Amino acid sequence: MMMRYWLLGLIFFAFAKASTAQIQRMEPPNWWTGMEHSQVEVMLYGNDIANQGEVASDLPIVNITKPENHNYLFITVETAGKSAGNYKISVGKKKANSKTFRLENRESGSKEREGFDSSDVIYLVMPDRFANGDPSNDSVDSMADKLNRSDRNGRHGGDIQGIIDHLDYIDDLGATAIWSTPLLEDNDARTSYHTYAQSDLYNIDPRYGTNELYRKLADELHAREMKLIMDVVPNHWGATHWMMQDLPMKSWIHQFDDHQDSDRDFPVDGYANSSYRQSVQMDPNASEYDMRYAEKGWFVSTMPDLNQEEPLVLNYLIQNTIWWIEYAGLDGLRVDTYAYNEKQGIADWTRAIMKEYPNINIVGETWLHDQAQISYWQKDSPVAAIQDYNTELPSVMDFTLHDAIMEAFKEEEQGWDKGMVRMYENFVNDFLYADTDNLLVFMANHDTNRFSGSGVYNNNEANYKLALTLILTTRGTPQIYYGDEIGMMGDKSKLGDGDIRRDFPGGWKGDAQNAFINPTAEQNEYQVFTKKLLNYRKNKSVLHTGKLLQYVPEQNCYVYFRHNDNSRVMVIINNNLEAVSLDMSRFAEGLGKAKNGLDILSDSEIDLSGTLQVAGKTSHVIDLDN
Amino acid sequence: MMMRYWLLGLIFFAFAKASTAQIQRMEPPNWWTGMEHSQVEVMLYGNDIANQGEVASDLPIVNITKPENHNYLFITVETAGKSAGNYKISVGKKKANSKTFRLENRESGSKEREGFDSSDVIYLVMPDRFANGDPSNDSVDSMADKLNRSDRNGRHGGDIQGIIDHLDYIDDLGATAIWSTPLLEDNDARTSYHTYAQSDLYNIDPRYGTNELYRKLADELHAREMKLIMDVVPNHWGATHWMMQDLPMKSWIHQFDDHQDSDRDFPVDGYANSSYRQSVQMDPNASEYDMRYAEKGWFVSTMPDLNQEEPLVLNYLIQNTIWWIEYAGLDGLRVDTYAYNEKQGIADWTRAIMKEYPNINIVGETWLHDQAQISYWQKDSPVAAIQDYNTELPSVMDFTLHDAIMEAFKEEEQGWDKGMVRMYENFVNDFLYADTDNLLVFMANHDTNRFSGSGVYNNNEANYKLALTLILTTRGTPQIYYGDEIGMMGDKSKLGDGDIRRDFPGGWKGDAQNAFINPTAEQNEYQVFTKKLLNYRKNKSVLHTGKLLQYVPEQNCYVYFRHNDNSRVMVIINNNLEAVSLDMSRFAEGLGKAKNGLDILSDSEIDLSGTLQVAGKTSHVIDLDN
Repeated sequence: MMMRYWLLGLIFFAFAKASTAQIQRMEPPNWWTGMEHSQVEVMLYGNDIANQGEVASDLPIVNITKPENHNYLFITVETAGKSAGNYKISVGKKKANSKTFRLENRESGSKEREGFDSSDVIYLVMPDRFANGDPSNDSVDSMADKLNRSDRNGRHGGDIQGIIDHLDYIDDLGATAIWSTPLLEDNDARTSYHTYAQSDLYNIDPRYGTNELYRKLADELHAREMKLIMDVVPNHWGATHWMMQDLPMKSWIHQFDDHQDSDRDFPVDGYANSSYRQSVQMDPNASEYDMRYAEKGWFVSTMPDLNQEEPLVLNYLIQNTIWWIEYAGLDGLRVDTYAYNEKQGIADWTRAIMKEYPNINIVGETWLHDQAQISYWQKDSPVAAIQDYNTELPSVMDFTLHDAIMEAFKEEEQGWDKGMVRMYENFVNDFLYADTDNLLVFMANHDTNRFSGSGVYNNNEANYKLALTLILTTRGTPQIYYGDEIGMMGDKSKLGDGDIRRDFPGGWKGDAQNAFINPTAEQNEYQVFTKKLLNYRKNKSVLHTGKLLQYVPEQNCYVYFRHNDNSRVMVIINNNLEAVSLDMSRFAEGLGKAKNGLDILSDSEIDLSGTLQVAGKTSHVIDLDN
Repeated sequence: MMMRYWLLGLIFFAFAKASTAQIQRMEPPNWWTGMEHSQVEVMLYGNDIANQGEVASDLPIVNITKPENHNYLFITVETAGKSAGNYKISVGKKKANSKTFRLENRESGSKEREGFDSSDVIYLVMPDRFANGDPSNDSVDSMADKLNRSDRNGRHGGDIQGIIDHLDYIDDLGATAIWSTPLLEDNDARTSYHTYAQSDLYNIDPRYGTNELYRKLADELHAREMKLIMDVVPNHWGATHWMMQDLPMKSWIHQFDDHQDSDRDFPVDGYANSSYRQSVQMDPNASEYDMRYAEKGWFVSTMPDLNQEEPLVLNYLIQNTIWWIEYAGLDGLRVDTYAYNEKQGIADWTRAIMKEYPNINIVGETWLHDQAQISYWQKDSPVAAIQDYNTELPSVMDFTLHDAIMEAFKEEEQGWDKGMVRMYENFVNDFLYADTDNLLVFMANHDTNRFSGSGVYNNNEANYKLALTLILTTRGTPQIYYGDEIGMMGDKSKLGDGDIRRDFPGGWKGDAQNAFINPTAEQNEYQVFTKKLLNYRKNKSVLHTGKLLQYVPEQNCYVYFRHNDNSRVMVIINNNLEAVSLDMSRFAEGLGKAKNGLDILSDSEIDLSGTLQVAGKTSHVIDLDN
């Protein structure tokens, strides 16, 4: 009985609204000439829009889809061969149901743009916590979560202008690319500062700035020959996304009819959390039950999981990403929770982006603890090939190296599988990867413990120097996390995510101390070392693409080389508390003809014959090309 | 000057001995008709044998090789098409330089013999420590190491007759195959009881019995429809091997001219220990330096490393293994230190054995801690294919499962990556293997800590039952270690290898207690459980070859199924100290149509609808076929 009344109510509601129907939203808002993806599926939203009459456009209409919910219409128009200008899309005769769809001129070279690569060093910023360049947008009426800098899980006011204001600092440091965590609108009432629960995929959050300002950030970076990497989230969006109150179809998101849901403030029949077991995705023994929760479970209850098996959803996500690359002039993407997505859906999404931009780079978050399971997600992975799977994703994150880094430098005694042996063993399994140059290597990021944090190395500068030497000189593309370069503290284990995302000192007017321009003596030690190594790496191409040659660590001291036909660099990382004597004849293959070299960390000549004494907890980066 | 004198001395020695030249050894001592390997390279040893004149045989001679040391001759004869009988091989005219080489009739079906497989349960015995069936051979004049049962590293007197005497016990227990650690002659003065430093590859050590008695062991096993697996050691032999005093050529073993050797009692220019870093073998970043020590270093100083790159060595090893399979009627091999061998050499060795016996089984010791690195050594490994490598080895050891077993049952709290999740995660990586049915699964062996030992589970019977349930019901071929079935103790970490190889109580006349026929109440608990599970498995083919279907463990309780079109078994392993309630609807896919089942461990019917309570630290093996 209840059901019948509810249905009647719905019909009445739809009828009542019909007379006021108008297009409230159109996505994407525009497109470009000369795109590979030339057939654009334009989504119109308005009350009963699907029943307003004939669809017309001065662009050829290829397809029209009316989903379950008639407040939506998906109209696919062909833009191939069309010039820039304004085109009309209309539904029926009412003026309110007509929209201008603009084709912009595509910038030349847009398709061929090259993404970040192993010649780059990526600086990861969390914009709310980096610098507050525009205090006027700290709180915004339309956004629920207001400024509260005293709450470690609240909004602190950092923004795009804050990043722009400190580009020279980042450039001087030697980083060549910025990955900012998401900047799109996130209207969650709490913890919106992380911005992974997005409420509008076509607009920058007003507390960070505007779409135009984001484009300015890209322009400012490009002016410095630096690159911009956008953090995109195809797996889910936020509970406050505008479409959640009125989904185009039930299957737009993953719903779990067999689970109760008494506590959602949007209409959904049921939801279930993800099992977070990404390894289910490749388990040949997996149950359908586990596969369902791995692919379709929600990351958290405020992040509805998008159903990429639904072609309308998949295409919506593809077009949205292409739109941002084209609009802002992006150099690459970082994809959140890559392995949580539907296996086929995310591969199709990635393939579509790469088809539009064959030379761009995309790195997926592959937070797994086994090289085979990480390799699985990279393009042309030989292990994914076992299951006839291929994501087309160019780059994955070397999380096993991160795991090793978080343990190894505490292990100061020689051990069979401890200390520097962890690094060595990580690189042994390089044979499982399709492309080791395109692995993101990092000490920490915004989701892990802080490297220098009290839960890990507790502001031990010597360990930072060893770890930074490693990630800056081994194969792959290094990524550092804002604040690493000043020994920023934080303890995720005890105080949660908010604590590993502390404000950068000096990013706020009135901050007691400014680490950008006036670092403490301790911060300065970190900064000087970081700057030296990053800037050396910048112009040392053998560190970008040279082959790695490694030696089994002895006495907890790890020695390796990067080399190519013209150039070689020797790296020594002594994790032993004591000095270690190295018989250099062991490294004959790596040394080649070099008899001496320049340690770029200490600016001193090193004699490479006989025996080399390496002080405890010290690294050398020895340029052999002089 | 010294060198010249030494050379003169050698020449004089050779000349002086020439007059007394005679064939002292011929290996192999015989061969068989109808062999795939029909061209037999017969090695003759005698003073200056290579210079005694024309080589003649009434078998066709295909090739004659005179190695550096003229005390050896390698004569390849063709046996194809020849009947059984005695053939002559002679060198020159002297009667002492003539030998009878016998061709035996090959047994029918020898080539097609089938090896052990996943329908088997392998019982691993260490013969010196299992049972002393013949006290008369405890010490033997010709062998240096004499009986000393009070020394945990000494010889205790166990022998082949001891194994034969207890075959009914092993059969009753439910095991269907025996892997005995090596039985060939090992004349080391110390720790010869382990017998991995062999001094004669064609003769059983007289302290264990005779070649004929070893063949009788095989016959007795076959009479019980059981199988015999020989432990072979192609990587190295013992310093007391008879050839070590007079090598056929310097390159017969790996010598390290750049290392000093002041302490060998056999002539060698230098030796170096292995680095034991087996992962170097697949490291794409490896140095030549590390590769040298990984492949060519000696396992210990008393085990010279054989050079399988030398064709004469490789063929010597191949023929020796074929000889034993044919002579004793073996059902399979276990290969010691498989990944320490030369990569190409051991692949060629394996290929040759498999060519002679296409259906036999060979399991390599692959003591690595990563599934990709273990998979690497198995035939048709998809990960070894990345490097165009293929060993042809049918079976490898699931050491990562062993690693997990040694930790998981201590972890009684639910944890993200602890307890039963370790098992689950191990089986996720099954996708990396070419053949998971042909993985050897085990709790422990003669080289690891004892499962029940004080260093591990300290005689905790509940944990033993959980672990045994796992290895007997998951995919693969289970192997148990003698004494596991009575909760035998031992602590390798504290007391070394000798302590994990204690004497089986009752194996020696006069033993205070006899666990074979009169177990203590505690031993009986272990034995009864073991017997029940092994005997159930014996006839339950779905546990041999059924597909595995697993569920992510919840509350430290692991549920999986083995299933095929006709049969299914549900396994529940609750590693939680507390009882756990399982909602059975979660397992619908595994349960199929079953509404109830028979727990073969408790002999009780289980209702599979609704909720199942599983007591803490308890396992169920539920037969769903009734």
